[in-house]
Amino acid sequence: MNRTDQSLENERICVIGLGLIGGSIIRALQAKGCGARVDAVVADANEARQARELGLVSEASTDVATAVAKATLVIVAVPIGAMAGVFADLAAALPADAVVTDTGSTKLSVIREAQASLGEGFARFVPGHPIAGTERSGLDAGFAELFEQRRVILTPTPATEPQALARVEALWRTIGARISEMDGAHHDEVLAATSHLPHLLAYTLVDTLARMAERTEIFEYAAGGFADFTRIASSSPSLWADIVTANHDAVLPVLDRYIGDLAAVRAAIADDDRDALAATFQRAKTARDGFAMRRS
Amino acid sequence: MNRTDQSLENERICVIGLGLIGGSIIRALQAKGCGARVDAVVADANEARQARELGLVSEASTDVATAVAKATLVIVAVPIGAMAGVFADLAAALPADAVVTDTGSTKLSVIREAQASLGEGFARFVPGHPIAGTERSGLDAGFAELFEQRRVILTPTPATEPQALARVEALWRTIGARISEMDGAHHDEVLAATSHLPHLLAYTLVDTLARMAERTEIFEYAAGGFADFTRIASSSPSLWADIVTANHDAVLPVLDRYIGDLAAVRAAIADDDRDALAATFQRAKTARDGFAMRRS
Repeated sequence: MNRTDQSLENERICVIGLGLIGGSIIRALQAKGCGARVDAVVADANEARQARELGLVSEASTDVATAVAKATLVIVAVPIGAMAGVFADLAAALPADAVVTDTGSTKLSVIREAQASLGEGFARFVPGHPIAGTERSGLDAGFAELFEQRRVILTPTPATEPQALARVEALWRTIGARISEMDGAHHDEVLAATSHLPHLLAYTLVDTLARMAERTEIFEYAAGGFADFTRIASSSPSLWADIVTANHDAVLPVLDRYIGDLAAVRAAIADDDRDALAATFQRAKTARDGFAMRRS
Repeated sequence: MNRTDQSLENERICVIGLGLIGGSIIRALQAKGCGARVDAVVADANEARQARELGLVSEASTDVATAVAKATLVIVAVPIGAMAGVFADLAAALPADAVVTDTGSTKLSVIREAQASLGEGFARFVPGHPIAGTERSGLDAGFAELFEQRRVILTPTPATEPQALARVEALWRTIGARISEMDGAHHDEVLAATSHLPHLLAYTLVDTLARMAERTEIFEYAAGGFADFTRIASSSPSLWADIVTANHDAVLPVLDRYIGDLAAVRAAIADDDRDALAATFQRAKTARDGFAMRRS
């Protein structure tokens, strides 16, 4: 088997975790007719039956050791809080040449956990994070086009073998993603700013309003802007508590920067400094419009 | 003319200001075939030509006194910062029986300004606010369906004549809106929480990120959740600086409440208190999912 042919044909893929991301990966692999055999590790017998009924996998097992025994490429797509347990299970069961990648929203914490468990296999571990998702979760929420034209960030370590990286790149290219590479610490800073902080702010806002006495009525008069602004507050609470805790070191500095900026906005309102507000809002609009234009 | 027939047929409507809201009102009136003559006060000759070319108004003038001379129902749809000037112009020109309403995002400030200028005409002033809009602004941004099934909040004062209220209700019912009534102070508190605060948070977030050194790159890795969360930061800076300043009294308490809650979330992150974070996020998700369900 030629490990550098950049095709998935000869891979035997095992996806661990069939949530939104794992479920979308197997749907995408199927839609692309990638040729690889795809097995899965599922949470329970119910999810195993569901996966089989959807015709998405060759075998679905609840046991990591069984499922990965013949795998050549293992994709760990479990919530951040469950990563360490999966790596511990993999340590004993992983075939010697198998490549492992993950889809976690934080990278330094995952890299630490993989390194602690995988031993020599850590050289074939390629940390990854697809910048794609919705506020929904679970196998039902997945769809084959989720990664189409979306970025996936790979954060290889100095130990990562180039061939392992190439095979994980082939995986993502096959299902339509655009690949970026950076180090794990930088990934965690960027995502703290653009993803973890917005989630914190949205969750906190909805909780603030929900605990106000007149809350039912308040939500009655909320409009489309509020619906968009708070959509991410419908994301999985447990998943996000784990992400924010795991990325503690990168989240706190950007949260503190935001708290400082919000205090300045508060001072401008208290001082009726309309021009300072307008200047802040204008800078924001210019940046937001530029962002929207680059996306479209 | 029977003033209680709840139809617009005999009204001669003058819309002052053809931005998103004013432009959508005249499009909606036209689409509904309301039968009323509709004139407009526009910002400049260019906008007057545009309004005539779109076939939206009978007459478009830049002069309030000329435009309202024969009006029976005047809709003031200018930005909050321009309300006081329009009421001053109306004071001298308003026909004795004409009803006046507005579409401003804050109500106590508008009521104060109307009372200061309109004299006896204040009894026929019906403060209003359609809870509808997009992040876009200007005559081009308007569309006839903007108010369909959306709420409009009317905040009559003790001085407001019931017949004036009934005629403004007929206007909004004709173009598809659902009418709510509350007092102006309560309106301002509710909107501070569900609209003004989210705008402040979104503007501040985008500005915080835009001023970070690596900002271009940061926005590259932002995904759909960020796009939704920050959409309202593309709203008109000048309009929103005026709204927040005008609603100073209601915005500050809810902003302070939010700042306190965000400090508690920060403390939970600093303490690695994952369970406290999960509990906050869960309360928020439950409230947000309930809100989404009521909307759909």
